[in-house]
Amino acid sequence: MLTVPVIDAAIDVALREDLGAGDVTTEAIVPRSLRGIARAVAKQSLVVCGGDVFARVFYRLDASLRVERRAAEGSRVEPGEVLWIVEGAAASILSAERTALNFAQRMSGIATLAARYVAAVPEGAALTVVDTRKTTPGLRAFERYAVRTGGAKNHRSDLGAMVLVKDNHVALAGGVSAAVEAVRARASHALRVEVEVTSLAELDEALAARADVVMLDNFRPEDVAVAVARAKGRAVVEVSGGVTLERIPELARLGVDVVSVGALTHSAPAADISLELERLG
Amino acid sequence: MLTVPVIDAAIDVALREDLGAGDVTTEAIVPRSLRGIARAVAKQSLVVCGGDVFARVFYRLDASLRVERRAAEGSRVEPGEVLWIVEGAAASILSAERTALNFAQRMSGIATLAARYVAAVPEGAALTVVDTRKTTPGLRAFERYAVRTGGAKNHRSDLGAMVLVKDNHVALAGGVSAAVEAVRARASHALRVEVEVTSLAELDEALAARADVVMLDNFRPEDVAVAVARAKGRAVVEVSGGVTLERIPELARLGVDVVSVGALTHSAPAADISLELERLG
Amino acid sequence: MLTVPVIDAAIDVALREDLGAGDVTTEAIVPRSLRGIARAVAKQSLVVCGGDVFARVFYRLDASLRVERRAAEGSRVEPGEVLWIVEGAAASILSAERTALNFAQRMSGIATLAARYVAAVPEGAALTVVDTRKTTPGLRAFERYAVRTGGAKNHRSDLGAMVLVKDNHVALAGGVSAAVEAVRARASHALRVEVEVTSLAELDEALAARADVVMLDNFRPEDVAVAVARAKGRAVVEVSGGVTLERIPELARLGVDVVSVGALTHSAPAADISLELERLG
Amino acid sequence: MLTVPVIDAAIDVALREDLGAGDVTTEAIVPRSLRGIARAVAKQSLVVCGGDVFARVFYRLDASLRVERRAAEGSRVEPGEVLWIVEGAAASILSAERTALNFAQRMSGIATLAARYVAAVPEGAALTVVDTRKTTPGLRAFERYAVRTGGAKNHRSDLGAMVLVKDNHVALAGGVSAAVEAVRARASHALRVEVEVTSLAELDEALAARADVVMLDNFRPEDVAVAVARAKGRAVVEVSGGVTLERIPELARLGVDVVSVGALTHSAPAADISLELERLG
Amino acid sequence: MLTVPVIDAAIDVALREDLGAGDVTTEAIVPRSLRGIARAVAKQSLVVCGGDVFARVFYRLDASLRVERRAAEGSRVEPGEVLWIVEGAAASILSAERTALNFAQRMSGIATLAARYVAAVPEGAALTVVDTRKTTPGLRAFERYAVRTGGAKNHRSDLGAMVLVKDNHVALAGGVSAAVEAVRARASHALRVEVEVTSLAELDEALAARADVVMLDNFRPEDVAVAVARAKGRAVVEVSGGVTLERIPELARLGVDVVSVGALTHSAPAADISLELERLG
Amino acid sequence: MLTVPVIDAAIDVALREDLGAGDVTTEAIVPRSLRGIARAVAKQSLVVCGGDVFARVFYRLDASLRVERRAAEGSRVEPGEVLWIVEGAAASILSAERTALNFAQRMSGIATLAARYVAAVPEGAALTVVDTRKTTPGLRAFERYAVRTGGAKNHRSDLGAMVLVKDNHVALAGGVSAAVEAVRARASHALRVEVEVTSLAELDEALAARADVVMLDNFRPEDVAVAVARAKGRAVVEVSGGVTLERIPELARLGVDVVSVGALTHSAPAADISLELERLG
Repeated sequence: MLTVPVIDAAIDVALREDLGAGDVTTEAIVPRSLRGIARAVAKQSLVVCGGDVFARVFYRLDASLRVERRAAEGSRVEPGEVLWIVEGAAASILSAERTALNFAQRMSGIATLAARYVAAVPEGAALTVVDTRKTTPGLRAFERYAVRTGGAKNHRSDLGAMVLVKDNHVALAGGVSAAVEAVRARASHALRVEVEVTSLAELDEALAARADVVMLDNFRPEDVAVAVARAKGRAVVEVSGGVTLERIPELARLGVDVVSVGALTHSAPAADISLELERLG
Repeated sequence: MLTVPVIDAAIDVALREDLGAGDVTTEAIVPRSLRGIARAVAKQSLVVCGGDVFARVFYRLDASLRVERRAAEGSRVEPGEVLWIVEGAAASILSAERTALNFAQRMSGIATLAARYVAAVPEGAALTVVDTRKTTPGLRAFERYAVRTGGAKNHRSDLGAMVLVKDNHVALAGGVSAAVEAVRARASHALRVEVEVTSLAELDEALAARADVVMLDNFRPEDVAVAVARAKGRAVVEVSGGVTLERIPELARLGVDVVSVGALTHSAPAADISLELERLG
Repeated sequence: MLTVPVIDAAIDVALREDLGAGDVTTEAIVPRSLRGIARAVAKQSLVVCGGDVFARVFYRLDASLRVERRAAEGSRVEPGEVLWIVEGAAASILSAERTALNFAQRMSGIATLAARYVAAVPEGAALTVVDTRKTTPGLRAFERYAVRTGGAKNHRSDLGAMVLVKDNHVALAGGVSAAVEAVRARASHALRVEVEVTSLAELDEALAARADVVMLDNFRPEDVAVAVARAKGRAVVEVSGGVTLERIPELARLGVDVVSVGALTHSAPAADISLELERLG
Repeated sequence: MLTVPVIDAAIDVALREDLGAGDVTTEAIVPRSLRGIARAVAKQSLVVCGGDVFARVFYRLDASLRVERRAAEGSRVEPGEVLWIVEGAAASILSAERTALNFAQRMSGIATLAARYVAAVPEGAALTVVDTRKTTPGLRAFERYAVRTGGAKNHRSDLGAMVLVKDNHVALAGGVSAAVEAVRARASHALRVEVEVTSLAELDEALAARADVVMLDNFRPEDVAVAVARAKGRAVVEVSGGVTLERIPELARLGVDVVSVGALTHSAPAADISLELERLG
Repeated sequence: MLTVPVIDAAIDVALREDLGAGDVTTEAIVPRSLRGIARAVAKQSLVVCGGDVFARVFYRLDASLRVERRAAEGSRVEPGEVLWIVEGAAASILSAERTALNFAQRMSGIATLAARYVAAVPEGAALTVVDTRKTTPGLRAFERYAVRTGGAKNHRSDLGAMVLVKDNHVALAGGVSAAVEAVRARASHALRVEVEVTSLAELDEALAARADVVMLDNFRPEDVAVAVARAKGRAVVEVSGGVTLERIPELARLGVDVVSVGALTHSAPAADISLELERLG
Repeated sequence: MLTVPVIDAAIDVALREDLGAGDVTTEAIVPRSLRGIARAVAKQSLVVCGGDVFARVFYRLDASLRVERRAAEGSRVEPGEVLWIVEGAAASILSAERTALNFAQRMSGIATLAARYVAAVPEGAALTVVDTRKTTPGLRAFERYAVRTGGAKNHRSDLGAMVLVKDNHVALAGGVSAAVEAVRARASHALRVEVEVTSLAELDEALAARADVVMLDNFRPEDVAVAVARAKGRAVVEVSGGVTLERIPELARLGVDVVSVGALTHSAPAADISLELERLG
């Protein structure tokens, strides 16, 4: 679930962006009394995401509009299927349309891409697909929710929610052990500790330091296999960086636990959804 | 140029999103006194965009950081080239890195895609590529700037900056003429009037009503040619909807004035830029 | 229509300004259970404007208050007529009264002044009266709406909604033609281009450059007539600067299309409206 | 002095309002490298107010601009005199001009009007002119400051800064004594208590209840004289409502201590100030 | 009463702080359809405060939750008593619980401490206990309301609501008389004037200058008695600084009018309240 | 480190709260040109915390003020020692004083209390003291930083930064195993999983489910000992609820890993710090 004040803050910014100076066209042409019904229709196969946000955009512009959900969050719909239906003042529907769709298309686009990655995991494999912090500024909560809606999982929400010792931290600390030691001395017991390693030697150091998760950076497939074997029962193995859809089956086969995929959020194309309005009465 | 309060509002939201609870890793490992230099390096061929925003993220987190521009906004850089250099407290650089890159990668991604569309216009053709209002909620100003930086142009900024009579408006008004008449009676002399038309008959109506711009919706190529001929000297001709990179040369050849491309902003993949940190002293 | 997040943001600021530290008088004297009915009464002849905002102030302070509209937006009322009626907790009505009236009196004041300008246009003349960007910081949308409610029209909403080449731009560009050329090369096809001209020679340059609108700056009446004749069928003619109520008939007679009047928003006196409370039950 | 976060919040809203979508004209025409100097010049006799805000608008848009004050806050300047000088990037000056002037013209307009009221007080009279809470929503601090700058004083800042028992409170409480008693029982010792009275009988009640200030509502001149005599040494006498410039001398002569004038803030015409830009280098 | 926009702003910040990244535990475990009822139960003897805020936190997160008040604001409850009951989606209740309690526990803690101070005033004594400006940044309105709810009163709300000439002002002005004179020349007639005095000589100066309130700073008991006698009928006597619960009876006996106690807000321990959830249906 | 936009948002709210209507006393008495130096002096033994925030309050009100740190964050100072020194316009110092101290006194109060808890851990014991989410709404980041500054550690920052299965979750899920299973199926690999247990049987269930941390709720000392033994090498043992300073040594001796103490943030008395101003020049 998205938290209401988080949704509302983003919606208000978006509505001011598009409607701060009004909707000159609709105001000139469409009388307030005219009522309409509008259907949000999938123009491609997609995973539905963002119904709450879509509805709240309309509600926020005109609290008398009513939105009905026809397709469940996370469900797959095919071209032509109706996702949501809006009813009320036609002018309000027209003015809010683009803002509502901008949210829904992005969220459904991410959910749809996430679902493709999840679907690429071979039957029976335990590989988990997760997102990264490479999200759109201001929309992280929305995009992480979309990733979950698509069936993948989330990595840490922010820099305070997990310790992740990256190559730069290792270099500045003077090695994996020193870095993890510094972390143990100061960080919360509430946090997992993940260590990015660039070689099997560093992996061993990270395991010895009892990292909860190890992130393999640019390992050759044969080294991934070795790493997985060594980490077995000691730490979760994550592969990050350059993980394309095509590489998913191999990484699953190698026994990797988690792959993190920045593209889920930073490069997902918008899902194609259009709003078809009809006059009522 | 982006307006400072617009930049700052978005940056503050983004920094709170990622750093509201601090950076537990960096705080545990990297002493405040340690200084570093970091280079933002292109990992692909891209059009540089967002240098001001990139710099301001670092500045906003730690006003003592210094950012130097190595590549001009709108210039093309190749893999390995340095875009920007940050110098100062290593801890601050590490904490702000992801937020700064999230802005810059999105902006450069859009600029790069826009440049591809512009490059697809045949030499000598007068076709202009423009964006749409299908932008990321909260980031419209950033994305429109990125489109311009890539060499394309902007469509209207928001619903108050131009009259655009769409099919739904036409339907609700009872025809193109009635719609435009309503607009003339109420809208500002400061605004252009664009009319979306779905047939040559509607085109004629729009031209008769002295629309400044006509938007051809789903016209077959032969009809586009007719439309261009009829509108010549009377209105700007815009084609919108489903305009792929591949269709650009043909549309240019047909004499279309403007194509509007939602994908420029709603589906541009992030440009690959990484930050390489080195310890100083 | 005003956009709800725009209204709410301004109302919240205003309520915090007046009620951030509570209403010590009402809290001490008026029990929460006491109910009242209050009538907003015109104390002068005025054009009604701001009913939505007036109602929303009360709603925002106490969602159980009910507001009924007695006079339509844009209608003329005479002294003693009731505009709106509020009913509910007397304490809430008293606490919100001043904030609600501050909005409504300003908005009705502007609408009333706009109506005076519009009424000054002689029967049959085509002169349009419009506002300017000389609005109260933070209240532009409210004031532009009030101008429309009074029967006048709006000029551009902001610096992104139209190209307006002013004398300073001309000077910096090295002439009208150079300025317009620069604009054509970069600005959106969605935007009208207006050029401020200070002489008939500049007017000719602007018309040759196909400006959509020309703004005559400080032209003598005889030159206005010449300008109107030259611009006929080529560009809209706007007169700006020092346009008093008294000059309206002459400018209309000269065939000017548009006059823009800063005073509509920057110097409209507040309309006199008072709230008369009566105890219920 | 205005408090910086109060100034900045209003400025940011105002700049977003005008520049949220950029300044298309200036961006197209004026190169960033071009420098200019601009003089804010009085076009009428006025009392200077708002120099800090004027300067901060430019600073907020472009921190490299420099603003110099030529006329002191509160000083009287005549047409043609220079108030402030801005120097730096011409494009930034042009883009911020209107926002800066919108603040300064309103503030100077109020200061100028306040000064007229103060000047109307006969030499030697002790009458103080004060404002009311009839201020522009969102700009109360700016307008109260302008009133002081013009030489008048402020009434209470908000509903929490003084007890003011108005006619409605009296009616709901069942009389002046009951109302003041309720207030004494609950309100802070830090607050003055003012009572609005509509008759000499109520005045006596208010004085008996030891009101700090009594506000005479609609008293005939002869009753004002009686009221002043009775209140002498016991309470400050304030006259409010319908106080025009013309009535000031008489009210002063009658010995009234304070007049509160809503028009100072709700109906002050903007002062005429223009910005004259010159190219540098 | 607290003003709604003040409440909502604080609640939204608090909910984003705790729930900006969602509630991973509840989301994983508790189905949205599961309903619950939760009772806020006192775990200590306390004065109830914050029911409106408690309710609004739940409402703001999930508008379908219903909150019922069982104990009146300002009433004393004993351990085990139910203050408020929340009913609706169990997941929403769990997610909002901590935020709602954080407000209510602080507010009730302050009300409870204020009540202890008030109870320490001997029967029949006229001593008033008030708070100070030593409040939690961002929560002043909440804490002042809690002080009133506990039966004490408020000092000035902010630096604009009363003149309080402190020792530093006296020193910079060159004496009490000079300071008060400066104030009389500039400050509003709407404001009381309080003067902090450090000796009987300064007290006399303040009384001569007709201060409304005198604040005795670090006076020995015998000097307090003298001060009270001298100020009788001329000014309110306030004692501030180091006023512990134990000193209340003596200060009351000495005839002091007001004691201001910073500890009421800056050091009140949270009241112990817990939320007990039960599954419904 | 605190994140700048987090600090600034809280400071701006606090300054508006106290100074939204100006500082009437200082403005009337203290000329802008008068300069001063002010020393923040400890009036009790305390652990210094909040120097950055203290400095930024002054900077935000008047950027020309200079603040010097005399005592390091986290250091212990005794009564009379100087923590920080502010220099510049005396009027600005006086106006910002209370806001700056309100932050610093709260932060130092928490750091001082945290240090007392940490000091109560017997030499050689491995017990870690941590805070809870029982923080002041809006100030969580400040208070968590203060806890760290006092030498204790933080628990999870918010509901998205760790899985914590509480008694209510267990009850709704139908047992510890079911709850943890649900979590494993949906929550991120980046998050630790903590389970609150109310009996040794539940403890065993939690350990079997491989909880990372177990929280013992209301265990008798002898059961704590058993729990510690069983969890050894399998999970971190945390004790929460009713952990007073007096119980720390015993809990340490029993081998508990972590105690979480709500009082650190919800009931820490403010540290006594005062600002002593002296005129310069």
